[in-house]
Formats: sequence, C-alpha cells, structure tokens
Amino acid sequence: MADFALPGLDPTSDRPVFKQIADHLREAMNGSALPPGSKVPSESQLMTHYGVARMTIRNALQLLQSEGLTVAEHGKGVFVRSRPQVRCLASDRFARRHREQGKAAFIAETEESGGKPSVDSIQISEQEASPDVAKRLGLPAGQSVVVRSRRYLINGHPVETAISYIPSHIAQGTQITHPNSGPGGIYARLEELGYRLDHFDEEIRSRMPLRDEVKALKLAPGIPVFHLIRTAYADDGQAVEVCDTVMSSDAYVLSYQLPAR
Amino acid sequence: MADFALPGLDPTSDRPVFKQIADHLREAMNGSALPPGSKVPSESQLMTHYGVARMTIRNALQLLQSEGLTVAEHGKGVFVRSRPQVRCLASDRFARRHREQGKAAFIAETEESGGKPSVDSIQISEQEASPDVAKRLGLPAGQSVVVRSRRYLINGHPVETAISYIPSHIAQGTQITHPNSGPGGIYARLEELGYRLDHFDEEIRSRMPLRDEVKALKLAPGIPVFHLIRTAYADDGQAVEVCDTVMSSDAYVLSYQLPAR
Repeated sequence: MADFALPGLDPTSDRPVFKQIADHLREAMNGSALPPGSKVPSESQLMTHYGVARMTIRNALQLLQSEGLTVAEHGKGVFVRSRPQVRCLASDRFARRHREQGKAAFIAETEESGGKPSVDSIQISEQEASPDVAKRLGLPAGQSVVVRSRRYLINGHPVETAISYIPSHIAQGTQITHPNSGPGGIYARLEELGYRLDHFDEEIRSRMPLRDEVKALKLAPGIPVFHLIRTAYADDGQAVEVCDTVMSSDAYVLSYQLPAR
Repeated sequence: MADFALPGLDPTSDRPVFKQIADHLREAMNGSALPPGSKVPSESQLMTHYGVARMTIRNALQLLQSEGLTVAEHGKGVFVRSRPQVRCLASDRFARRHREQGKAAFIAETEESGGKPSVDSIQISEQEASPDVAKRLGLPAGQSVVVRSRRYLINGHPVETAISYIPSHIAQGTQITHPNSGPGGIYARLEELGYRLDHFDEEIRSRMPLRDEVKALKLAPGIPVFHLIRTAYADDGQAVEVCDTVMSSDAYVLSYQLPAR
C-alpha cells in the first residue's frame, strides 16, 4: 500500500471500526510516517488493507477532516494538512517603541519573522455604535463611531479580519478616517492627537467560524477561530478604540505575560 | 410547524439548499425565535415546510451540529445548545494577594462567580521531562520532574484538564508531591520554599480536541479547545513550573492586559 505499515483492526475492541482506522492514520500523522503535505492512502488501498466497506473508510477520513488534520483535494485525494506560517503575538506588541519605528504591529512582526505582510479590503465608514461597542468605549448608546475594517494576509494567505471602532468626536477630520492611516497606524495617530495610550485589554474566545469567516479567511474544515476584542485606553482612563478581530487559529499563537506579584 | 416562521428557499440563489436551510435556522438561533435549550423543528416538519428530501434536511442539521450550535438527543430530537457557565480568566488571577487568601485561583474565581468548583482525577508521578518541558524549564534534557495532573469541574461539568511539571530538585520531599497541595496551591508552596514568583508567560493555541480530550471534557461536537501552556518564573529569572492545560472553549473567556508604553 504505502511505504509505511498500518496495524490491523482489533476485533476484541468495542471501539467502532472507523474510529480504529482513524486512530491508526492519526498516529501515522503524529509520527514521521505521514508528514504534513503527504498523501493519505486512497479509499481503495485502505479498503483492501482493512477488508471493510468503502463507507467505513469514508467515515474514518471524514472524522480526520473534521478534526482539521487532513484536506481533500478534488480528484487528487486526501492530504495531511500543511500548516501556514504561524504568527506569534507577543504581549509587548503594542509597546510605544514599536509604534515609534513607524510601522503598525502586524507589518513589523510579520516582516521580522520573514513573512510578506499585506492588508486588503480596507473599508471606512461612520456608524452608530452597537450597544456592546458603546459600552466598551464608555459612550452613551447611539453615539457615532468611525469604523475601519480590513483583512490581514501573510504571504498572500488571509489570517485575520479586524474592525476598529473609534469615537467620531476623536477621529473625525483626522488621518484615522483615511484608508492609509499613516506611519505607526491609528495608535500613533491617537497619540499625536493627545491620547497617550496606557494599556490594552484583550478578551479572547475560541469557536468554530461562521460562514462568512470561512470565506474571508479561506479556512479548511475543522479549523476554529480566535475571536479577540481589544480595547485601547488612554492614560486618563478613557477608552479610545475597540478592535474586534477574527483570526485563523491555524496561523496564530497568542502569548501574554501575567504578573505574579 | 413551530411557533415562529422560517422563510422559504430562494430559487434564484446559487447557495446550496441545505446551506440556505441552515442559514434560516442559524438566524432563528441568533434571534429570539430559537433560544438555547429549545427544540429545533423536526426533520419531518422541515421537509414539509421546505418541500425537500430528508437527506437535505439532515445535511442542514449536520452542518449546524458541526458548528457547535445544536446537540442531537437520541430519540428526543435536536436542541439548541445551552452553554455552560463561562469562567472569565482575568490577567491578575495569579497575583499574590489571591494566593495569600489561601485559595487556588480556580477555586477562588469559581466561587466568586457563584459556581461550585471541584477537582478530580488527581495523579502525581515523577518522570523524565520531555524535550519541550525541559526546554521551557531551562533544564538539561532527561532531568526528572514531578508531574501533577488533574481535572477541573464547575457545577460537576468538566471544563479543564491541567498537567504541571515542577523540577524534582525543587518539589521532592515537599507538599507539592501530595494530592492536596495545601492552602493557596503549589504557587504558595513554591513561594514558601523561597522561589518568590515574578511573572508567568502564557502561550495560547486553539484547535479541535483530540479523542481523549472530547471524553475528559465531555465536549459537544463543534466545540474547539484552548491549549494553554503557562511557565512560572521566580524573581531570579528561573522557570519553576510549566503548566499544560486544555480548556473547553465553551466554558472560558480569557482576558489579558497589554502595556502600551
């Protein structure tokens, strides 16, 4: 069959046959037998090896796909999923020294790690804040906010969508309302406007993606997303921006430092 | 059918019929028509409403289940999933003032939020550190570590499994090797031993659960996990513990504070 050996079925096990087969393939992927990008044995090969019906093999392969371990390529077969370049988000990524170098965090970090960053789908509008955004910004309900939405890509592959909400009374008439927000991004602009940034709060959830998110991030089946909501606070305690982002869990490791004192 | 109205199919759409049906049900769940815990209309009701084959309805329901939105109860039907109590992890959760109150972070936080915390499956052993754990602890390969594994539950429902690794030369002969690690947990014990804690680094990934994790955390289909690896550092820069945890994404919102300065 392949140039590696799969074990046989355990007839004494009460574990369903398709799960036993998935277990064997999963083990081969965790070891060196089936590395990322390699082709999983075909349905026919697996039927012959295990002596079971095609539907049983399909159920096993379906299970692996739902776990995000494999990708089916139409007409070519099933492959062990290759992972995209992972971006590690450090907890000092929004420190002033980075802003002062004139690059937004995403651009600077991706370049540092040898990837090619890009941003597309930039859209800017002015809207009434949703109750949740108004609450996070400490605004009365229905206040107007400038909304900047965009998509981030690494080496041409989308990894994150983000929507920033900035109170209109802060952003109106500034470069924050332009597609190109200038060197250092909107955080540098906010500081120039006198909103000296003090800290950010980030709230992280994980869940399966919605339909539009699968499309925007070109997610393979079985890949969850991080849903991260960040609020930026100026040093007078005022919230000056809320950023709502959805990130492919595949492309990110988040890292944070917590105080122990 | 139900006491709410589903729209009809859009014959001009190029979106497959089962996805259109899933869209309608998803919208009903996002609104007030199908709240958590409520019963989704039956296959037969949906077949009649849409005038489509049973397989089409099943595909739509399967899609919603894979998104973690519904749960099938054998012989009873399909229900909108109720979410367990969510535990918000604050970025000061390991601050000394909490330890000094004599409670481990999990117990203190769960009680504060009105839930009933418990811990089970406590196992303690001594092992050779894996290359990854040794690297995080700054130990030479093959050094011995004390391994504490346990499972956390809220109101009897499992939400997290955790494995701590502490260098044997620190933990041996101390209460850290006992199932009950005493008031304030192992971080309090480490401080009593003279390892004054300075900070923790946390690394967060999100992915679909492995088979054993689905069992241990009783995860519904379509629910990813957070995989969090925390390293505790003493104030001389030495790493004194690595904690490897897997958390139901359903039961947690993680929150962190980042510096802007």
